[in-house]
Amino acid sequence: MSYTDYIFNDYRRRCDELEASTNPFAKGIAWVGGDYVPVAEAKIPLLDQGFMKSDLTYDVPAVWDGRFFRLDDHLDRFEASMKKLRMVSPIPRQEIRDRLVEMVAKSGIRDAYVMMFMTRGLRYVRQYAPEDCPNHCYLLVTPYLWVMGEEVQKAGGSAVIARTVRRIPAGAIDPTVKNLQWGDFTRAIFEARDRGAMYPILSDGDGNLTEGSGFNVVLVKDGRIYTPRRGVLEGVTRKTVLKLAERLGLDCVVDDIPVQLAYDSEEIMFVTTAGGVMPITILDGQPVGDGQVGPVTKTLWKAYWDAHSDPEFSFPINYY
Amino acid sequence: MSYTDYIFNDYRRRCDELEASTNPFAKGIAWVGGDYVPVAEAKIPLLDQGFMKSDLTYDVPAVWDGRFFRLDDHLDRFEASMKKLRMVSPIPRQEIRDRLVEMVAKSGIRDAYVMMFMTRGLRYVRQYAPEDCPNHCYLLVTPYLWVMGEEVQKAGGSAVIARTVRRIPAGAIDPTVKNLQWGDFTRAIFEARDRGAMYPILSDGDGNLTEGSGFNVVLVKDGRIYTPRRGVLEGVTRKTVLKLAERLGLDCVVDDIPVQLAYDSEEIMFVTTAGGVMPITILDGQPVGDGQVGPVTKTLWKAYWDAHSDPEFSFPINYY
Repeated sequence: MSYTDYIFNDYRRRCDELEASTNPFAKGIAWVGGDYVPVAEAKIPLLDQGFMKSDLTYDVPAVWDGRFFRLDDHLDRFEASMKKLRMVSPIPRQEIRDRLVEMVAKSGIRDAYVMMFMTRGLRYVRQYAPEDCPNHCYLLVTPYLWVMGEEVQKAGGSAVIARTVRRIPAGAIDPTVKNLQWGDFTRAIFEARDRGAMYPILSDGDGNLTEGSGFNVVLVKDGRIYTPRRGVLEGVTRKTVLKLAERLGLDCVVDDIPVQLAYDSEEIMFVTTAGGVMPITILDGQPVGDGQVGPVTKTLWKAYWDAHSDPEFSFPINYY
Repeated sequence: MSYTDYIFNDYRRRCDELEASTNPFAKGIAWVGGDYVPVAEAKIPLLDQGFMKSDLTYDVPAVWDGRFFRLDDHLDRFEASMKKLRMVSPIPRQEIRDRLVEMVAKSGIRDAYVMMFMTRGLRYVRQYAPEDCPNHCYLLVTPYLWVMGEEVQKAGGSAVIARTVRRIPAGAIDPTVKNLQWGDFTRAIFEARDRGAMYPILSDGDGNLTEGSGFNVVLVKDGRIYTPRRGVLEGVTRKTVLKLAERLGLDCVVDDIPVQLAYDSEEIMFVTTAGGVMPITILDGQPVGDGQVGPVTKTLWKAYWDAHSDPEFSFPINYY
């Protein structure tokens, strides 16, 4: 029996139920232009600056086993990102929150990947002051997505430190504003694929680690936890993992992390809402530590998934 | 009489004619999902990776006075960009070309801003090999857009060298692949606005100039032309201006250009398809040279617009 069965057995049963659902929103529901539509029918204007200049921010909370996880933390970050981009939501925060809960309930999806987008709207900021650009809000709920699926979580995934591409520096695009300007990540995904690995980690171009394509990086060395302080998204999952690690009595170092430390680590985890705590057991073709999913990873894995039913972090959704 | 009247007087007459047109596509025509639609109705799937990850390339040729300008050069670059992104157009190059010409003819627009987009499509490159991602092509023709309008072209515009943001380095996102990941440009536009100027120029973070928000930068110093070699889009307008400058017997230097040279220049031009050769006469609040549009700028301005009726660079469209 794998350490993951504890979570995945029940999850697979819920997936089977969703698969059998006749709810028209069972494959996903979007709120675009004021209407609820099945995700496959959701469209946005070609001229939306969110497409025309990737001028947007977004956020991604999740629903697990019928409970919304850390929704308010994601809304906090979403609002902070909007403020940095000089955006103002056309609808109040409470309405975004209510609609997201309503959409999950309406869809019947019990394990959901939830996205909220705020785009600049149809006006371009060179021609209009930001206060004269009515921003567009789009909402999306789909079945839960896995950056790392069950089988890989059991054995651990493989990664490379990208050598052909570096992370966009914070002085160019602020990574704490969650954004979809993924050109560096896309290049790095291709490099990982070309080198026979699943995931890339990007450096900051100055010898320090940053993050990967949609996840923060957490290292374990001498029983201590390390994660990069800057040049990265301030991930909600990273925050959760740090809090849980501290409760477990583990020392956490959030600082500049030299690239070399990844090669010297006993364990490596990638952490993100879409997958949780994901073990990496091969780096640049070599085993990480003894090449097995390590004890700290397993402990944090369990603590992370247990938090999903803890009222401190989550609340139940009233399905119809 | 201004040096610009020569071009703008006729252009304004054509704009009046377009304004009076009853053609349903007179405000713009798009080709999306295989249909021609008025631009205001053009929509793309929310799940398109061109939106979800800004995973796309695009290009922008123009039509001037009923003639397509350097269309094949733009198609060459578009194809080169696609190749670097491991994309393959779902339709042949000739079909893109034919459709663009057809769209301009159909719209009756005699001065047009033309966009071609290639997005990754609906599949995400972490989950699918690039060869298994059917790419999406979108085409758009609207009335000509000006990065710098007539009145500003007459007197010259104002710019700042951004000090709060740097250009994304080529090691993160390759700027020769024309892209819409404009986060650094958007920040720089805000900085320019906050400092009372119209346009930003971004440095590479290592003391060299790169480009601005949608244009290349050309400096004139001691009668010689300077433009940055790397960390920038290899602009078609930049190429045209360099060719015309050489024909006029001007020395051209395409190299690393220190930021300081902008402050020491006699003339500064921004060059782009959406505006041509645009004079900058104020930099960081101080006059550039004597603060007037300079003789080299005026000479290149005329040569640039004259090229639009030259069969070496353009061909006529047969309107219906």
